[in-house]
Amino acid sequence: MSSLDSLFNPRSVILIGAAHTEIKLGGIVLKNLLKFGGKVYPVNPKYEELMGVKAYRSVAEIPGAADLAIIMRPAPEVPGILGELKGKTNAAIVVSSGFAEVGETELQSAVKEKGREFGIRLLGPNCMGLFNPGRKLDTFFISHERMKRPQRGNVAILSQSGAIMASLFEAVRASHIGISKAVGYGNAVDIDESDLFEYFLGDRETDVVVSYIESLGDGRKFVEKAQALSERKSLVILKAGKGTSGSAAAFSHTGRLAGRYEVFRSILKQFRLSEARDFDELMDATKALSYQGASRKSRTPRRAPAVGGNTGNRVCIITNGGGSGVLAADECMRQGLDVVRLSAERLDHLRGVFPNFYVLNNPLDLTAQVKDEDYSLVLNELRDDYDGFVVIALPNIPGITEKLGALMRAVKADLDKLMVFHIPTDGVSKKIISLLERSRIPVYPSPERAVKGLAALLQRRQNR
Amino acid sequence: MSSLDSLFNPRSVILIGAAHTEIKLGGIVLKNLLKFGGKVYPVNPKYEELMGVKAYRSVAEIPGAADLAIIMRPAPEVPGILGELKGKTNAAIVVSSGFAEVGETELQSAVKEKGREFGIRLLGPNCMGLFNPGRKLDTFFISHERMKRPQRGNVAILSQSGAIMASLFEAVRASHIGISKAVGYGNAVDIDESDLFEYFLGDRETDVVVSYIESLGDGRKFVEKAQALSERKSLVILKAGKGTSGSAAAFSHTGRLAGRYEVFRSILKQFRLSEARDFDELMDATKALSYQGASRKSRTPRRAPAVGGNTGNRVCIITNGGGSGVLAADECMRQGLDVVRLSAERLDHLRGVFPNFYVLNNPLDLTAQVKDEDYSLVLNELRDDYDGFVVIALPNIPGITEKLGALMRAVKADLDKLMVFHIPTDGVSKKIISLLERSRIPVYPSPERAVKGLAALLQRRQNR
Repeated sequence: MSSLDSLFNPRSVILIGAAHTEIKLGGIVLKNLLKFGGKVYPVNPKYEELMGVKAYRSVAEIPGAADLAIIMRPAPEVPGILGELKGKTNAAIVVSSGFAEVGETELQSAVKEKGREFGIRLLGPNCMGLFNPGRKLDTFFISHERMKRPQRGNVAILSQSGAIMASLFEAVRASHIGISKAVGYGNAVDIDESDLFEYFLGDRETDVVVSYIESLGDGRKFVEKAQALSERKSLVILKAGKGTSGSAAAFSHTGRLAGRYEVFRSILKQFRLSEARDFDELMDATKALSYQGASRKSRTPRRAPAVGGNTGNRVCIITNGGGSGVLAADECMRQGLDVVRLSAERLDHLRGVFPNFYVLNNPLDLTAQVKDEDYSLVLNELRDDYDGFVVIALPNIPGITEKLGALMRAVKADLDKLMVFHIPTDGVSKKIISLLERSRIPVYPSPERAVKGLAALLQRRQNR
Repeated sequence: MSSLDSLFNPRSVILIGAAHTEIKLGGIVLKNLLKFGGKVYPVNPKYEELMGVKAYRSVAEIPGAADLAIIMRPAPEVPGILGELKGKTNAAIVVSSGFAEVGETELQSAVKEKGREFGIRLLGPNCMGLFNPGRKLDTFFISHERMKRPQRGNVAILSQSGAIMASLFEAVRASHIGISKAVGYGNAVDIDESDLFEYFLGDRETDVVVSYIESLGDGRKFVEKAQALSERKSLVILKAGKGTSGSAAAFSHTGRLAGRYEVFRSILKQFRLSEARDFDELMDATKALSYQGASRKSRTPRRAPAVGGNTGNRVCIITNGGGSGVLAADECMRQGLDVVRLSAERLDHLRGVFPNFYVLNNPLDLTAQVKDEDYSLVLNELRDDYDGFVVIALPNIPGITEKLGALMRAVKADLDKLMVFHIPTDGVSKKIISLLERSRIPVYPSPERAVKGLAALLQRRQNR
């Protein structure tokens, strides 16, 4: 078993600093760990039993070895604990804080050295640890009541920050997507984003990797591993600590230097790595990519590629409200997507079937007189001319009904083109949104965010 | 009664094109109009009575005059209808579409000329019309079931687009703010954004004006009226139709040229007019400004201005999660806000009261060990040193409770400093968010959006 594999898929886990009550963090982790199917060894010198499980006074008392150890003791004790773990495990999560992030750089170096000396791969310190729903493995020190876990899915989350992990979990749940594995890696004294990129390249459960980075380790290694991952899977990066104050905050948060953001950004651009500008952009891209990843596996293209259409940036906006279409077109411009005019042939054909007040441009405005079927008709007519579609359905008019859900499911099954929706989230639209998202068509609360979702899909396709 | 006043506060309304059923738009408008306290004259040649109200076969049959007429007949009939209205009203809303937006520029010119000739001020054509909850006046052709109306409040919405009006209504409701008046002014053949700015300058119910513009009329007049309005009230502008495709879409939507966005943008900047980049930014600013406007009236500053603090951009970020603080600091940089270090004196004092693992920088990280009271303590300690506070409370830990709501209400009552919150919207936090927003402290779903809210408040204060 490789060391990262024993981290993500352990058969047995030692918990050092286990507690008898959920008032203590060591009690929360123990409770979460007990859902895990493998063997759990809680260590606490004061108890013979914790939460119904046999406890051990020390690591030495544990019979045999374990795949993984979790350390939840005060920072100064950690190097000594690693010594006790020598030969007992080859991977450990150091949850404890109190290292470089508060100026204790020597203590952190000691931890790093001990890990290397004893052949123990380290996650952390100052980290959230692991969540692997496929194995029911959950090492987080926040209860399920305080932080609901997302369902199982195809998105891996790598976050240096526990706070962002919690926010991402909530956003993942709201987006109706799920998690393959989540890793909070904190100060990254050993295992860093690059190691994790390499691991997830080979993880069959993962289609999309979301990476929240405050500070980079080895830049060259980062580029190499990120590129390799991007060729096979979707990778979306949010780099925090961009300015002077952000960098300083990132340093005091994880004790690693954030580096010059401009340099980082130009590298990402050069290697066509996908960057999110802020939290919402990160989630907007992740939602679209996760939906696409999930549907990709089960489908093969049923039609030849678009005539004259490279895998490019040709976008058609189909709307039933003029203003929303204009905002989408503006965002396409910002994202570098081409809102190409309709061809004369398509225009002629659509003019024959639609009322003369429909605005047959791009954006194509079906107006408040639209009917559900008009969307299918336009999408089928224009399918070969565009790389992606931004579809806007404002539900405040009688022509938009729940039928749109079934129609779009059929279009999506047949179309094999990228498609995102904008529908404002109001009382009327909840059912339609739910129907579309069950068909893995992502729906966004603003025109601009829908365009950002599509932009992520188009960039992803060009990277393949 | 001035012509715009008779538009917004009519005592009597003529509805030309009224219908007996809500299946027709003229029926929806009639139903909405019947909630209005004033006199309503429905006109329809085929009926003697509509929805229980006496109907008139023609405008000529109506006894006396009315303050406002609403025209819902096909475009080619509109010039003739204006002729019939001569002497009967001095303001009309032309709801009908089929003018410049579909190439019928001559017909639109005819409408414009007739209005001028007969002394009738015109709203529209191709527009949503008016919503004035204070008068229960609602001329929209969308039912309340299809589009819920927001509560009464201090925000005026001016939108060229009906679609954006609907989206704004939903966003206003979600933000727990309310509407003073809403105007959809479409092709703006007569009354345009500048006229409306002038009107709202004098409207006592309005603190914040939200302006969605696709195309400008007179640029010089726009700058003059926008500036005058900005000196007294909050004005937030979203200009759509920024690029070539966006402009083309805006043209086919309202038939007015969108103009060069770069020119528009530089003018806004030069005159310190507040611009939102996209729909979310528009609403993030509006929420903060509306809350502030509502609380401003009832309070006077209780303390002298900050020592050495101009009305500037000095921002303090107070968080309980490192990563979220870093993202907020990054957004401050993008918004041109200064995340200034804590003074030595404050630092000394805070070191004396807080545990040593709290990170006393800016962002100030109270960590997962935070207690509700820590936020009050920090805010009171730093009140004189900063112009605004971004407060982040991640609710996934035991130290964050509903008590935070009451504590922050007290802080806000005493502090007289700008303050915005970021709390992720999950199950745990709903109650806390609701308590804060009832105290008119705006809460945002991401760190970056909270910073954008604060940026709008700081810019507003500098404009005064």
